Amino acid sequence: MNHLIGWHHLDHAEWNQALKSSLRLGQQGKAWDRRAEGKSLCLMFFNPSLRTRASMEVASAQLGARATTISPGAGTWQMAFDDGAVMDGPEAEHIQEAVGVLSKYFDAIGVRVFASLSDYHKDSREYLINRFAAAADVPVINLESAFCHPCQELADASTIMEALDGDPRGRKFVLTWCYHPKALPMAVANSAVSMAARLGMDVVVARPEGYELDETVMNRARQYAEAAGGSLTESTNQDEALAGAHVVYAKSWAGRAVYDDPDAEAASRAQLHDWRVTEERMSRTDNGVFMHCLPVRRNVVVDDGVLDGPHAIHLRQAEYRLYAQKAILESVWNLKSAPG
Amino acid sequence: MNHLIGWHHLDHAEWNQALKSSLRLGQQGKAWDRRAEGKSLCLMFFNPSLRTRASMEVASAQLGARATTISPGAGTWQMAFDDGAVMDGPEAEHIQEAVGVLSKYFDAIGVRVFASLSDYHKDSREYLINRFAAAADVPVINLESAFCHPCQELADASTIMEALDGDPRGRKFVLTWCYHPKALPMAVANSAVSMAARLGMDVVVARPEGYELDETVMNRARQYAEAAGGSLTESTNQDEALAGAHVVYAKSWAGRAVYDDPDAEAASRAQLHDWRVTEERMSRTDNGVFMHCLPVRRNVVVDDGVLDGPHAIHLRQAEYRLYAQKAILESVWNLKSAPG
Amino acid sequence: MNHLIGWHHLDHAEWNQALKSSLRLGQQGKAWDRRAEGKSLCLMFFNPSLRTRASMEVASAQLGARATTISPGAGTWQMAFDDGAVMDGPEAEHIQEAVGVLSKYFDAIGVRVFASLSDYHKDSREYLINRFAAAADVPVINLESAFCHPCQELADASTIMEALDGDPRGRKFVLTWCYHPKALPMAVANSAVSMAARLGMDVVVARPEGYELDETVMNRARQYAEAAGGSLTESTNQDEALAGAHVVYAKSWAGRAVYDDPDAEAASRAQLHDWRVTEERMSRTDNGVFMHCLPVRRNVVVDDGVLDGPHAIHLRQAEYRLYAQKAILESVWNLKSAPG
Repeated sequence: MNHLIGWHHLDHAEWNQALKSSLRLGQQGKAWDRRAEGKSLCLMFFNPSLRTRASMEVASAQLGARATTISPGAGTWQMAFDDGAVMDGPEAEHIQEAVGVLSKYFDAIGVRVFASLSDYHKDSREYLINRFAAAADVPVINLESAFCHPCQELADASTIMEALDGDPRGRKFVLTWCYHPKALPMAVANSAVSMAARLGMDVVVARPEGYELDETVMNRARQYAEAAGGSLTESTNQDEALAGAHVVYAKSWAGRAVYDDPDAEAASRAQLHDWRVTEERMSRTDNGVFMHCLPVRRNVVVDDGVLDGPHAIHLRQAEYRLYAQKAILESVWNLKSAPG
Repeated sequence: MNHLIGWHHLDHAEWNQALKSSLRLGQQGKAWDRRAEGKSLCLMFFNPSLRTRASMEVASAQLGARATTISPGAGTWQMAFDDGAVMDGPEAEHIQEAVGVLSKYFDAIGVRVFASLSDYHKDSREYLINRFAAAADVPVINLESAFCHPCQELADASTIMEALDGDPRGRKFVLTWCYHPKALPMAVANSAVSMAARLGMDVVVARPEGYELDETVMNRARQYAEAAGGSLTESTNQDEALAGAHVVYAKSWAGRAVYDDPDAEAASRAQLHDWRVTEERMSRTDNGVFMHCLPVRRNVVVDDGVLDGPHAIHLRQAEYRLYAQKAILESVWNLKSAPG
Repeated sequence: MNHLIGWHHLDHAEWNQALKSSLRLGQQGKAWDRRAEGKSLCLMFFNPSLRTRASMEVASAQLGARATTISPGAGTWQMAFDDGAVMDGPEAEHIQEAVGVLSKYFDAIGVRVFASLSDYHKDSREYLINRFAAAADVPVINLESAFCHPCQELADASTIMEALDGDPRGRKFVLTWCYHPKALPMAVANSAVSMAARLGMDVVVARPEGYELDETVMNRARQYAEAAGGSLTESTNQDEALAGAHVVYAKSWAGRAVYDDPDAEAASRAQLHDWRVTEERMSRTDNGVFMHCLPVRRNVVVDDGVLDGPHAIHLRQAEYRLYAQKAILESVWNLKSAPG
């Protein structure tokens, strides 16, 4: 089955092909063709979405396909995921049936299902989305799962390729943790590290003690980096890490402690308000561009001066979501390449 | 007005024509044509939906029509239904206006409005959906009302026709009540009995004391059965009823007492956990197939072993929802028949 | 930027052109063409909607464009509007980013964002929708803001033109305040006065003491009326005002006091149940037609006898929403005129 759960499940060649397509579509802008006419796409959001939903709906439309968006629990039944579940609680439907049925109506199913932030083992092995995919007879597209966000990942890589004139190898990419009032999942951080490593960049993960990313994810990224002539290191000093950066990628994520002791994680995080991207910090970079996956909390994660300044490329990054989605649908449905 | 409130309001010939269409469309699978181009469909859900909404949206798309889905109370005003209502409560809009307006924008309106489970008289005479239909200038399609679910009914009949090689006459159909943690409406049960009776099957309604279906519904079904050479009987012994069954249709519904004394109904229901479809019980049938309208509560209504076993056809049944919806739109809009 | 925030920001010629288009489209009814093929429209509702959403979705479809409907807070992030906002509260996204991104995906953005009813200064200068528009790179269409509702305004003018045989000049238009159990915004009232004044009617605003409309709005309408050969006056006597009316437009709105002392406003309003359109009152008019923007509370704002009587044109008015939306999309996207 031609699922897109994470790019690490696919050949590097498929990633490269998708990246090439995304960049070509990015050159074309709002382009309509009928390459996916007669296809229908189900988008299932267990969590909120603006960009992912809007860009997927427009991507479908531009390709001539039809998208239906469903939010379980809001106008649809709550769903159970576990094998052997005794369903006497609030969940009225099991994904075995829900996904089984949707497979009959649609030609692909996109699903967003965030990390639990309570069971590290389940989150890190992508329990929920894997259960979902196993129940499907049509391709499943990950619209952000517990541990990765492949749509974002492809858009981010495209944006960097464009911003660095097609050759990011050896340039410095800093993923910097930032303070956020809520504990957030690691999915985007994992994907960002992975993507920058594949591009052969010198990747630095700047984060406080206790905010290490998952070891398996880091090891995999290190291998990508080495294969592509780049590197992967870590730092607990945001100021030092940003020195000479060509790309600054800001993101908050919950520390590992959130899984076992959420109060401790919150207390630790509350001391870290200073982890924030300011104009002063950006001035330490090598004319670095600023990226964020959005939504972003202004003046908490990053200052207005950065977001509204000349080095911010977060809106182009968000725009690339549309082109990346089209490249992903192209890949999942084996569409012929876009003209031009 | 060409409404589809319940099949019993239409000629038997219209039912037969729709069934024939549904079966033909089922053979074609995901087929797109433009027979309803330039038409638009409003889907209004006063209650949750997954299959009905998704299949109607896809059915519309495949026919070239456009569907808009509205959930009153979620992003839309709450609505009043009564004549002479003094609207000083939470309802900001009367269906007289809402439906009147939607009739001007759309070529048909689908509506789901479940049983109140508090006023038997209103539920059994289909008060809400009839009010709705009376206010409409375009065809209204019942997407499940208090007392019937014609979309499900057509899909179910199609599925049985296919499973029994086109000739269900004289085969044994058992609608078996099952325990469920919540009091549920009778609509699907009513439609299932009616549909199986029309197919000329030997229909048995297995249910505990106090869970009788409505007398008018039963009498009508008995007439259908007799006209088609079948029969309709009742049983309060699930094991006996299932013996030799060719089709097992599991469904829970609230007992009659729920309307007057919900606590008593809940107390009674709480003693009935054993009314459940198990592998052992399925082994008493004559290689019977298992059906359920979904959503289904695994290991409460029916065991995993049945749902995941070789005789379960509930997913094909759900798939037929799509083909049945297309047949219904064909009928309501007087479309020319599908090619092939 | 070709925004439609309020008609008063545009030339009178643009209003006239849109009115002409709306009337022509109204003659055609459910007409489909492909004039906007390849365009996509985002509809963002910060408040509930039935007519506006449904008519915009159908208008888009009939023109060959694709609409995506988003309700911030329901499946999408809550949003911040202020410059310099320190986003450590419930709002996860700033409109600067949200609108910036949507501008990349869509060819226009419709937005509904009601009055705060707590900050008169912000409401009267249209703070929220202006912030929204300032962040957009594509046309923004006002789907009802704090102080005007241009889509309703165009539909209302079209309906009056049709009802008064194309010549409303010198006919009496009474906007009459009505009791309503909730404090409501002034947007529709403002637009109604403005529209009737532009049509050259003799406009009377009938309302209790304390329910004056905004002075700037009234002054602007007075200028429109004078330029078109009509007039604008006020009355605190509903019965007298209705005498000889050709058009009665019922609407409730909060008194000015709601902004400073909501309890006082509610107490004052509670004494005004008698401000209501009855059959007896309609009999004082000169065969006047009855209009309301909907949703309307039956037997609170207006009696059943009026709504169900021969002079009610509120459903035709609601129908005109569809034709007006098409005229607005035509204007915003500079489409060529509809054939015929």
